Amino acid sequence: IQKRDVQLMKLNELPAETKDGKLIRLKANIEIPEEVDAAIGHGADGIGLYRSEFLFIRPGGLPDEEEQFLAYKHVIQAMGNKPVTIRTLDLGGDKLKHNMKEFSSGEKNPILGWRAIRFCLAHPEIFRTQLRALLRASAFGNLRIMFPLISGLGELEQSLQILGDVRQELRSKGHSVADHIPAGIMIEVPSAAMISDILAKRSHFFSIGTNDLIQYTVAVDRGNENIAYLYDPMHPGVLRFLKMVIENAHKAGIVAGMCGEMAGDPLYTMVLLGLGLDEFSMSSFGIPQVKQIIRSTSIVEAEEFVGRLMEMDDCNDIEHLLRTTMEEKFDITDFRR
Amino acid sequence: IQKRDVQLMKLNELPAETKDGKLIRLKANIEIPEEVDAAIGHGADGIGLYRSEFLFIRPGGLPDEEEQFLAYKHVIQAMGNKPVTIRTLDLGGDKLKHNMKEFSSGEKNPILGWRAIRFCLAHPEIFRTQLRALLRASAFGNLRIMFPLISGLGELEQSLQILGDVRQELRSKGHSVADHIPAGIMIEVPSAAMISDILAKRSHFFSIGTNDLIQYTVAVDRGNENIAYLYDPMHPGVLRFLKMVIENAHKAGIVAGMCGEMAGDPLYTMVLLGLGLDEFSMSSFGIPQVKQIIRSTSIVEAEEFVGRLMEMDDCNDIEHLLRTTMEEKFDITDFRR
Ligand SMILES: [Mg+2]
Ligand SMILES: [Mg+2]
Repeated sequence: IQKRDVQLMKLNELPAETKDGKLIRLKANIEIPEEVDAAIGHGADGIGLYRSEFLFIRPGGLPDEEEQFLAYKHVIQAMGNKPVTIRTLDLGGDKLKHNMKEFSSGEKNPILGWRAIRFCLAHPEIFRTQLRALLRASAFGNLRIMFPLISGLGELEQSLQILGDVRQELRSKGHSVADHIPAGIMIEVPSAAMISDILAKRSHFFSIGTNDLIQYTVAVDRGNENIAYLYDPMHPGVLRFLKMVIENAHKAGIVAGMCGEMAGDPLYTMVLLGLGLDEFSMSSFGIPQVKQIIRSTSIVEAEEFVGRLMEMDDCNDIEHLLRTTMEEKFDITDFRR
Repeated sequence: IQKRDVQLMKLNELPAETKDGKLIRLKANIEIPEEVDAAIGHGADGIGLYRSEFLFIRPGGLPDEEEQFLAYKHVIQAMGNKPVTIRTLDLGGDKLKHNMKEFSSGEKNPILGWRAIRFCLAHPEIFRTQLRALLRASAFGNLRIMFPLISGLGELEQSLQILGDVRQELRSKGHSVADHIPAGIMIEVPSAAMISDILAKRSHFFSIGTNDLIQYTVAVDRGNENIAYLYDPMHPGVLRFLKMVIENAHKAGIVAGMCGEMAGDPLYTMVLLGLGLDEFSMSSFGIPQVKQIIRSTSIVEAEEFVGRLMEMDDCNDIEHLLRTTMEEKFDITDFRR
């Protein structure tokens, strides 16, 4: 295993390019600014998902603009001209109540609850503070902003409106802000997937959040051990959703990325290539193995493979063909089970 | 209002037929056997949803086969040759724990939890007892069996397998069972909607459960007052799902019905007609008003109307056109808000 790790690390300087020449972006998911070193060390083409939650969860009150600015700037600067996608707050009040006296929690179904963009739009002071910190940090590198849990066009338009307001406010006060900051959304709610053609017209990029998308699509809390078996990235309904979202992104001329666990699991790399995914974002440590698969596959064969999987009706048949093919094709026998 | 009620009641003997001759089935949702009288009194074409839960929730242990048999037989007999669709148990252990000593509840997200068909497949003794009672009652009229919360083909196939086993077992013991008992499914999980073409091949009918389908599609617990505003039957993603499911039912030659609240709300009657819905099931009291709208509309104009709604990107525009059109077109000013 150690020998293979060394081989994989050698891949760092090589591009994630398929045998027929499609260049894929492999990016890192990070939770805290310090992880940026591992991202660089593993050859990440950027940060695909910087979760901003760590600042909000730690005790001691909500972070002010300055604290956030410094945290965001650290990562943006460290990555140089590589893109850094920072997701706006993706929490609900249940996780913030120790920092927000006025908040009383107690939701019966928090996964279907007052979270993420819903929470931010209802608490504009928290949202605007974060956006101010982000925009100020944008002057130091290549920032992208990503809104989580968008379910419809209204939420996206409201978020963009507030972002525009904050930008104008900062500029009028003499702060420097990058000229172009791509603003994209996570596609993780089924309704967003269903109208991804509409949302693509107002987004600079998509990042598919498979963890939530799968949970909502099959109506399963995967933390619930009695039913976690239903959480299946290879459910044909999930595959169709992925295909639909990626196609709609491409029709609108925007990039389709993914930052859920599925993106970092080498078992699914060929499937995602075949579906047309442009960017994979994952834990830094997963990048070399996924890159290795990408470099030994062509888009043509990946598309043909996905086509065969998608003609099957039964999850078990799909899973079986997927595993046997990946195990035969690549010298990898330790796919996560 | 009383005068209109009398007029509406006169409709009972008239068919729910559009101006251009499509005959719609209007059926009743009932919770307890006694409600069957109201269903007949309001001219229901059958029972579209008989919730079997009342027997399981009352204290005193789970109902045995005989108690269930009598309850089901009562409704089936009372409806004569009109169809009675009985849904198998649609509860999770949280609602049954007073009747099941071994069950410890405490799910964090019960709406995404161990419920309905998932619970029944994990407790085959409960499921088989109910199916035995249903099949025995089938000899007394026109029964249809409906499985709730199907998320994929596997659950449907397992359920049909068990149903077949129970039928054989009963026959071999000399019980009489109806020759043909249509077995259908609720479409209320996004993954089921996404693969409704696949599921339609193994189902005798679909009944769209809009309450859950909308909750999962927009990822909202509508009981959560902070976010209930996102629960929107006119979300364009929901409309597309409805269209997809109904079209897939028709391609497979099966009936597409609906038993969620949307089916009984006259505000949506024209939309649902335009989408091609064949059967509407609702509280008995709602039947006359929905029938009145159906009788004063044509499929052609309903399709044209839905076409216009579905070209719109924004929920608010859709909602506005819907309300103004329905209020102008029909002499109804008290649409639920
Ligand atoms: Mg998420
Ligand atoms: Mg339901």
